[in-house]
Amino acid sequence: MTVSREVELEGHIIDSGMMQSCFGIIMDLGGSFSVQEFDIGRHKDEESYARMLVEADDEAQLQSIVHELHQHGVNPSDPKDATLVPAPDDQVVPHGFYSTTNHPTFIRHNGEWIEVEDVEMDCAVVVEDGDASEAQRASEQSSGGDETPRDGPRAYTKVLNAIEEGDMVVTDETGIKVQPPERPRDSGGAFGFMQGGVSSERPSESTIRKIANAIEETKKEGGNVMAVCGPALIHSGAREDLARLVREGYVDMLSAGNGFAVHDIERDIYGTSLGMDTESLDHPRHGHKHHIYTISEVIREGGIEEAVESGTIESGVMYECIDNDRPFVLAGSIRDDGPLPDTITDAVEAQNAIREQAHEADMVLMLSTLLHSVAVGNCLPSTTRVVCVDINPATVTQLLDRGSAQAVGMVTDIGTFVPILARQLLGED
Amino acid sequence: MTVSREVELEGHIIDSGMMQSCFGIIMDLGGSFSVQEFDIGRHKDEESYARMLVEADDEAQLQSIVHELHQHGVNPSDPKDATLVPAPDDQVVPHGFYSTTNHPTFIRHNGEWIEVEDVEMDCAVVVEDGDASEAQRASEQSSGGDETPRDGPRAYTKVLNAIEEGDMVVTDETGIKVQPPERPRDSGGAFGFMQGGVSSERPSESTIRKIANAIEETKKEGGNVMAVCGPALIHSGAREDLARLVREGYVDMLSAGNGFAVHDIERDIYGTSLGMDTESLDHPRHGHKHHIYTISEVIREGGIEEAVESGTIESGVMYECIDNDRPFVLAGSIRDDGPLPDTITDAVEAQNAIREQAHEADMVLMLSTLLHSVAVGNCLPSTTRVVCVDINPATVTQLLDRGSAQAVGMVTDIGTFVPILARQLLGED
Amino acid sequence: MTVSREVELEGHIIDSGMMQSCFGIIMDLGGSFSVQEFDIGRHKDEESYARMLVEADDEAQLQSIVHELHQHGVNPSDPKDATLVPAPDDQVVPHGFYSTTNHPTFIRHNGEWIEVEDVEMDCAVVVEDGDASEAQRASEQSSGGDETPRDGPRAYTKVLNAIEEGDMVVTDETGIKVQPPERPRDSGGAFGFMQGGVSSERPSESTIRKIANAIEETKKEGGNVMAVCGPALIHSGAREDLARLVREGYVDMLSAGNGFAVHDIERDIYGTSLGMDTESLDHPRHGHKHHIYTISEVIREGGIEEAVESGTIESGVMYECIDNDRPFVLAGSIRDDGPLPDTITDAVEAQNAIREQAHEADMVLMLSTLLHSVAVGNCLPSTTRVVCVDINPATVTQLLDRGSAQAVGMVTDIGTFVPILARQLLGED
Amino acid sequence: MTVSREVELEGHIIDSGMMQSCFGIIMDLGGSFSVQEFDIGRHKDEESYARMLVEADDEAQLQSIVHELHQHGVNPSDPKDATLVPAPDDQVVPHGFYSTTNHPTFIRHNGEWIEVEDVEMDCAVVVEDGDASEAQRASEQSSGGDETPRDGPRAYTKVLNAIEEGDMVVTDETGIKVQPPERPRDSGGAFGFMQGGVSSERPSESTIRKIANAIEETKKEGGNVMAVCGPALIHSGAREDLARLVREGYVDMLSAGNGFAVHDIERDIYGTSLGMDTESLDHPRHGHKHHIYTISEVIREGGIEEAVESGTIESGVMYECIDNDRPFVLAGSIRDDGPLPDTITDAVEAQNAIREQAHEADMVLMLSTLLHSVAVGNCLPSTTRVVCVDINPATVTQLLDRGSAQAVGMVTDIGTFVPILARQLLGED
Repeated sequence: MTVSREVELEGHIIDSGMMQSCFGIIMDLGGSFSVQEFDIGRHKDEESYARMLVEADDEAQLQSIVHELHQHGVNPSDPKDATLVPAPDDQVVPHGFYSTTNHPTFIRHNGEWIEVEDVEMDCAVVVEDGDASEAQRASEQSSGGDETPRDGPRAYTKVLNAIEEGDMVVTDETGIKVQPPERPRDSGGAFGFMQGGVSSERPSESTIRKIANAIEETKKEGGNVMAVCGPALIHSGAREDLARLVREGYVDMLSAGNGFAVHDIERDIYGTSLGMDTESLDHPRHGHKHHIYTISEVIREGGIEEAVESGTIESGVMYECIDNDRPFVLAGSIRDDGPLPDTITDAVEAQNAIREQAHEADMVLMLSTLLHSVAVGNCLPSTTRVVCVDINPATVTQLLDRGSAQAVGMVTDIGTFVPILARQLLGED
Repeated sequence: MTVSREVELEGHIIDSGMMQSCFGIIMDLGGSFSVQEFDIGRHKDEESYARMLVEADDEAQLQSIVHELHQHGVNPSDPKDATLVPAPDDQVVPHGFYSTTNHPTFIRHNGEWIEVEDVEMDCAVVVEDGDASEAQRASEQSSGGDETPRDGPRAYTKVLNAIEEGDMVVTDETGIKVQPPERPRDSGGAFGFMQGGVSSERPSESTIRKIANAIEETKKEGGNVMAVCGPALIHSGAREDLARLVREGYVDMLSAGNGFAVHDIERDIYGTSLGMDTESLDHPRHGHKHHIYTISEVIREGGIEEAVESGTIESGVMYECIDNDRPFVLAGSIRDDGPLPDTITDAVEAQNAIREQAHEADMVLMLSTLLHSVAVGNCLPSTTRVVCVDINPATVTQLLDRGSAQAVGMVTDIGTFVPILARQLLGED
Repeated sequence: MTVSREVELEGHIIDSGMMQSCFGIIMDLGGSFSVQEFDIGRHKDEESYARMLVEADDEAQLQSIVHELHQHGVNPSDPKDATLVPAPDDQVVPHGFYSTTNHPTFIRHNGEWIEVEDVEMDCAVVVEDGDASEAQRASEQSSGGDETPRDGPRAYTKVLNAIEEGDMVVTDETGIKVQPPERPRDSGGAFGFMQGGVSSERPSESTIRKIANAIEETKKEGGNVMAVCGPALIHSGAREDLARLVREGYVDMLSAGNGFAVHDIERDIYGTSLGMDTESLDHPRHGHKHHIYTISEVIREGGIEEAVESGTIESGVMYECIDNDRPFVLAGSIRDDGPLPDTITDAVEAQNAIREQAHEADMVLMLSTLLHSVAVGNCLPSTTRVVCVDINPATVTQLLDRGSAQAVGMVTDIGTFVPILARQLLGED
Repeated sequence: MTVSREVELEGHIIDSGMMQSCFGIIMDLGGSFSVQEFDIGRHKDEESYARMLVEADDEAQLQSIVHELHQHGVNPSDPKDATLVPAPDDQVVPHGFYSTTNHPTFIRHNGEWIEVEDVEMDCAVVVEDGDASEAQRASEQSSGGDETPRDGPRAYTKVLNAIEEGDMVVTDETGIKVQPPERPRDSGGAFGFMQGGVSSERPSESTIRKIANAIEETKKEGGNVMAVCGPALIHSGAREDLARLVREGYVDMLSAGNGFAVHDIERDIYGTSLGMDTESLDHPRHGHKHHIYTISEVIREGGIEEAVESGTIESGVMYECIDNDRPFVLAGSIRDDGPLPDTITDAVEAQNAIREQAHEADMVLMLSTLLHSVAVGNCLPSTTRVVCVDINPATVTQLLDRGSAQAVGMVTDIGTFVPILARQLLGED
């Protein structure tokens, strides 16, 4: 005796690979299927539709197949409401809670599909009815002050440590719809090149030109560009050009660590980065102490903003952020010296600050940092455009694998990448 | 008119490279010198002695030369007391404070040389007279509970954020003596191979045998072996063998991150690591959720120890640490999921925990983690034995560059390294 | 006005990705299509069939679409004979000649489909009617002495420099059928794991066990295992274990360079590899000369076989090859010292020797050499099983990209890989 | 009873590290020493001198110590003539022949020191008296046609396969003097930065500016600049800028492989490199066939020069080489397609062509190729300036390790390096 369930596929189900994944999953998990309806889109702009019956030996097997299908955007044709279970304690989710992907997600609640706000990976989904008390509302991670309070029910993500006793958490797999983004059909636009995986053997200057175009397009659309920066950017001499991009408005937000800021400021105060003059390549005497002296100077002033105001810091990336009101997050790590007063030393607090920034970003440049890029990437929905630049192909691969449909990786030298990008954007080429 | 100062070199000053560095520094900085006495050691076990007059054009140049020389272990022959200046505020060091190397260091105070306790890089040195109040004593970072309080004056390191108003901080460069460790002359002993830099083209099994010997030697001497572990160790299937080494007493302390512990426990509870069965290489259904479910389970129990006691965790590295009373530090980072209740999320607190562990270690195995290895390495004196293992040569190079005289790097696969090491140590080969 | 052509797809056209590629190609090249028949396989073991009409604006566009489709295994439903044009001169192919993929390929000739022999990438296809003269037959690159001469027409590949005036060369794209191998549905067999791409974070020992199983399976099926070896294998201390695998019959053929053989023999004669004792890690005096002395000794003897016979070489990989009649090819390169008399210094001759070996191989182990692995890989059809092992992920990626459907890459240390593999195969674990 | 020998050190024996190496060798090999005279240079421009007595337990040990010392430039103070033994057969050197380093070397013959011509690593040294017959002279590898024949005795290197029966070959270690180059004291000149090892975290643009200065300095001194190029240079889009450097006379000679030339010409004829348009990043249809078609076209023409003359090739690196009479060597390898008629397929012949070029070079740019860089590096004396550029740090390290005292490595993207270098040299920045 077999059990069965009807599922539906919609969209560019063939050229997006959805159909292929779907058939593969059913077969891999030991089920079978019959296609009951299949309308195929013949042109670029036509969507397809398929309805099929999935069959399995028993209910458990069927469940597992349907669950996997659902992760790939295949949904039951007879949707039911999602199951909600209250969290038994603070930071404790109910057993079998639904853990999110980074794709646009919808929850069926009272017969209606509601979109999950601030989707990111590995979160729980909390559903809240319209009559939510103010107290509850205040505790939501996603609370943006300027949004109009909505009246209807809401669904939003919460990371595990933000869960509060009594939160209504989605469990199991019913009543959930996921929409993996499709590969852009038309490769002609400014973002057309962003489907390409990684290579260290692509034409470098042409690729940088494409990235510059995508940044310009993002700005033209009114979007925000976020730069996630590692200290290698400063050592490799790209500081001045990044500072120009901040000043000229091509970088709207900055996410970095304590080290990045210290190296940037060291170059301003002492002319060196980790003791080396990035212009002359000399190592002035006492140079190795500049790092720790820089930290000490900023602590003495009370912080970066204070040091800019007092005239102690007069140039550089952090200076331009302060001077042009570009928000930044400096997240602490266990390898930090100091740290600077601006550095958020608590990892959970820092994550929350990063999360808030990430949700504002329309395009993210990940510039030679694995740690911070992963942290930011964890908070991004799959629809945000991402460019990863690193000289280590393993880093680029690791970042792209975590996946955005509009991500592109470039294996190059950050010390030549930023200057060429700046020349492109500032029209100097 | 020139100014001059007499300096002395002692020890294996030629074959350690000290003399070469010394001459290079003087010439690079524009000075000259005359050798006034030179007794050369002719045999392995004889030390050399040199006295020379350093000449410069003016006092500033002379100062800079003498300062650089001093960093390399060359000391003025007419030592003066170190200059002490009180810290003007909490976390604020006096201008021109002396920033430490990781070499054994001595401070001249009241005409006596006192060794700086708990030497590590980039710290300030605080000197305290014998009549230190209990309050002051309690606030020292280096306070080991089991040490007998000493009566005489003490000198010890403090990181910037631990400085308190009024701390007597060493400034300038007088009255400080540094002893860079010498390259061991005799390459015959168990640690003889530890002078070798990095290579991916060395005989792997033979190198692992040497490392096993060094661990055995360290244990025989009553020393502590510390393992610093990255999550790749679990993914690569080395978990069971590392757990055995913990159980059998070859690893006394563990330093890792939240991810390492989660993957280790996931393998115990769900049989997977990041969703893959490390035995069969299969990806069971729902596997990608095991990671977040594991965290949730441990949070539910209240922590790792509680989960071990309740029987939720029954095997693995963390289990053996709990079961055999091996202390561990789990340091948080901004890319953590969860985190586990055991994870120290504040970077400064985590650094302090790491520091305390690091000072207890006689040999450190850095196993495929850059972040945690750098954090631990920052707290180590140059005399601690270090073995770095990573498949990425850049990681190994970066770690060795931060330098310990008895460090050795091995570019290999952690997933084959640990099993072969375990076989060697447990006599199964 | 549009033009159109009917094409057919057969096999596991959806889960192999063929259908997805097909729709993508048509759309990317500006065409459209209508699906005219679509029988979908519902179970693992059922094949699907689709017939569709491809439409384009003009004949040129249609041609280009049909050509691209054909590269992916989609063939016109009204096949015509292939176009044959005689080569105008030695080494000169006709304009528009068909350049091969590494997939099984069929040529339509006189209304019959004949399979192309010895398929490999980037070759021309020569068709020969049954009445071929002996002279022609002798000049074919693929001539295996033990094959029965066939009477009917034949098609076989020729590299450019083997083309002779008058060869009937396939041009254009009609009358050619390509069959890209499908992803094996069932992941349960010994080769099931060979679909996995590359990762340095897979469980190492478990992966090696899978590779050992695949070797055993290949031997059980009567297949040939070929090892392609780089000099790092010797430096890393894996020589003795590879020699055992040759002796015990797990490696049937060897492909390497001059350096590999020299290092292997140096270890036998002088106990070192590039001057280092791979057992003790010592560098005996004069060690750096052993390399060139080894070459000199073998030249003096007249070759490796002579040196084995005279007792000069008594152990090692080359010794076991000679002693057990395992054929080997040593291909020369511009970085060689010597070279040994056995090394084929001409690149074209060496390629031919490699080609002949490669065509005999059923499974190829590529062990830490990029140059030789690429050379061998160039000669392999996509149906040969390939395992690539290298510590550099870029090397593994580059090799897998050239593609075999049954290729697997492993990023690990060859110096630990071979010993563990040997232990597995020789039942010592 | 001990035996002893007097040795001498001259030059910057301390800051070059010679003295340190010397003491280390004696102690490592179990000897002892007494310093008998020691005149130390006190200023940058003063040389030092030391005379010392080396003692050992027996003659064999003494020999081994003296031999090692000699490799590091320490020479016996009582020199004897070198031992010459006739080669017993073609390609066969006498037992115990002296194998060269890449440092300037002198042979004592009839009481006179004669410099060894064309020094390179791992060669034999052949000594020839003044009355050399024409036949002998013709067979010397180093024969440059334009050199005046010298009357006195000569010493020159021969690779093993060039040895002829009867050649008088230097054996043992007496009568040989080696001069390892010293680290340049003054870091101010154009080549001052060339002492720096490798790093991926140096300021990129500043480093490229230094390299540009060194090239300009070399040209100003009338020197030859040789570029050794890998195919990645073309893929990464740097072709046009390298072509400009050839045209403008900044690159005098080219050493590359078949693939480099094919990709360069493919870009000219078809607008692609390995099928990708390096400007637009598009993959035109049939693009993957352009590679093999390019080869076919050049074969049809008879060679690159013929294809330039006929107008088939109209731009690019190879075009500029032909058009501006810059000699090039294309060395074959087993992974070549084709190859082009210009490619030297025999490895020994190709090495000889490379050797001849290498001996003419005053500065060598190694641009993203390991194979060709090693081949060229093998032929260079340690006094030639070398710049290695690769995105893979392992490649750069491997090249620098083979050693030139004036070598510098840069880990960067060749696709951004060449354009920035060209802008610097051509005054466009």
